[in-house]
Amino acid sequence: MSDRREPFRYRVRVQYIDTDRGGVVHHAAYLRFMEQARIELLRARGIDYRRFEDEVGKALPVAEVRARYEKPAHFDDALEVETSVGRINRAKIRFDYRIFRGEELLHEASITCACVDLAQKRLCSMDRRIREAFE
Amino acid sequence: MSDRREPFRYRVRVQYIDTDRGGVVHHAAYLRFMEQARIELLRARGIDYRRFEDEVGKALPVAEVRARYEKPAHFDDALEVETSVGRINRAKIRFDYRIFRGEELLHEASITCACVDLAQKRLCSMDRRIREAFE
Amino acid sequence: MSDRREPFRYRVRVQYIDTDRGGVVHHAAYLRFMEQARIELLRARGIDYRRFEDEVGKALPVAEVRARYEKPAHFDDALEVETSVGRINRAKIRFDYRIFRGEELLHEASITCACVDLAQKRLCSMDRRIREAFE
Amino acid sequence: MSDRREPFRYRVRVQYIDTDRGGVVHHAAYLRFMEQARIELLRARGIDYRRFEDEVGKALPVAEVRARYEKPAHFDDALEVETSVGRINRAKIRFDYRIFRGEELLHEASITCACVDLAQKRLCSMDRRIREAFE
Repeated sequence: MSDRREPFRYRVRVQYIDTDRGGVVHHAAYLRFMEQARIELLRARGIDYRRFEDEVGKALPVAEVRARYEKPAHFDDALEVETSVGRINRAKIRFDYRIFRGEELLHEASITCACVDLAQKRLCSMDRRIREAFE
Repeated sequence: MSDRREPFRYRVRVQYIDTDRGGVVHHAAYLRFMEQARIELLRARGIDYRRFEDEVGKALPVAEVRARYEKPAHFDDALEVETSVGRINRAKIRFDYRIFRGEELLHEASITCACVDLAQKRLCSMDRRIREAFE
Repeated sequence: MSDRREPFRYRVRVQYIDTDRGGVVHHAAYLRFMEQARIELLRARGIDYRRFEDEVGKALPVAEVRARYEKPAHFDDALEVETSVGRINRAKIRFDYRIFRGEELLHEASITCACVDLAQKRLCSMDRRIREAFE
Repeated sequence: MSDRREPFRYRVRVQYIDTDRGGVVHHAAYLRFMEQARIELLRARGIDYRRFEDEVGKALPVAEVRARYEKPAHFDDALEVETSVGRINRAKIRFDYRIFRGEELLHEASITCACVDLAQKRLCSMDRRIREAFE
C-alpha cells in the first residue's frame, strides 16, 4: 500500500506518438498520462479498476478537467506524475496532479470523476470501496 | 447508394493531433482515416455500422493490416481515401485503400476484417448483409 | 467569412477510435474535436493556421483547459461543436465551446491558447492577425 | 546492452484509452506499443533515438506495416512485446514483433522503417550506427 500522506508518483516516458508538429507533447496526451496515473494510484490502494468495472459494475468517468500547461514536454522525456486525492464526497472524487520533469513543473491539473452504475447507466453515490481507499 | 463499380471516396482533413515531431502525419493516424472510410463506405451501401453491432450483434474487427507509406502527409492536407472491397468470402472481407493528396499517392493499404458474433465472443461466418452489400 | 455575432459551428462525426470500453467517447477525444473546430474557425476568419505556423512563425499552443462532461457521446453520433472567442488580450485568446448532439448539450469547455514565437521558442504578444480576426 | 541472440522484451500495460467500444484494444494501439518497443530496443543497443533525430539529423519513419491480430487484448492486460530485427540492408530495417499475454500470442507484425535525412527531407542509406547496432 502506498503511504497516504505522500502524493502518489507514476513515471511515464513520453512516446513519439505523444508529440505533434510543434515538436512538443500534444495537449491531449497529458490526459492519457493522468488517466494511467489514476489507475495505478487505485491499484496501489487495493482497487483493481478493471474488476471495479466488471465485477462491482461501477465506473469513474471524468466529469471535469481543469488543466494548466506551464512548460512543454518533449519526446523521450521521463516525466513524473504526482497524484493526490484532493477531495472526495458522496458524489465525486477529485484527483490533483502535478507533472514534473526532474524539478521542473510542466503541468498542473485537477480531474474530477463521478461514480456511475454501469447497469443503470446513471450516476450513483460514490462507491464505498473508493471512499474507504482514500479516507 | 454509391456506384459499385467505382472506388468509394472519403475526404479527410489532416488534424494537428495526427502529426508528430517529424512534422508529418504519424503512421498510426492512417488507421483512423481508413477506419472511418470503412464506416462511411458501409453507410453508403445501406449498412449503419452502429446498428450492425448493437442490433445485429456482430462486429467486423480488423484481423490483418498491410500498409505501405509512400509519401508523408502533412497537417491540414486534404486527403482523399479511396476504398474498394478487394475480396469477400464466408469468413472475411478485405478493404483496399489508396490515399491521395490531389494526384499524389501517399499511402496504400489492405485491411482485412473478420466477422465476430458479439454475444458468443467468437468468429462467425460473414454476415449476409455485408456480403449482399458488396456483391 | 463567418458572421462574428454567431458562434461558429463545426460538425463532427464520432469515430470508432474515439470510443472506449465504457461504450462512450473517451474524455480525451473532445480535445481533438475542439482543436479542429478552432482550426476551422480560424480558417473561416481568414487565417490559415498552417501558414500561421510556417510563414508567420508563430503558434497558438493550449495553455489552459477547463472542461465539463455533461452527458456521454456515442459512436457515430453527429455532434455540433459551437465555438466562440470568449476573450482575447495581448497575451492570450480563450475559445469557449459547447458541444451538442441535436438539442442536447453534452460538453462545455474553455480552452485558452497562448501565442508563441516558434523561432525564439517563447511566449510573445498575441499576433495582430489573430486579434484583428476576432475584433 | 541486450543479448543480441534473444528477442528484446518490452512490457506494456494496456491503458483505458487503448480500448474501444468493442471492449478490446483498438487495432491502432498496437502501433503505439510497437513504436515504443522499437525506441527501447534501440536504447538497449546504445542508440538514443531522440539524439539520433536531433544530433545525427536522421529519422527512421515507418515505410511498411504487416500485422495480424490473432486474439484481442483487454484493458489492464500486461503484455510483452517481443522485438527482433528481421532484416537490415542499406536502405531499410525490418522489426519483427510478437505480442504476448503470458503464453498466448495475441499479435504478430513486421514493421519496416526507412532511413531519412531530416535536413534534405529525403531517403538516405541506412545510418551506420543503426547497422552496427544490429550486426
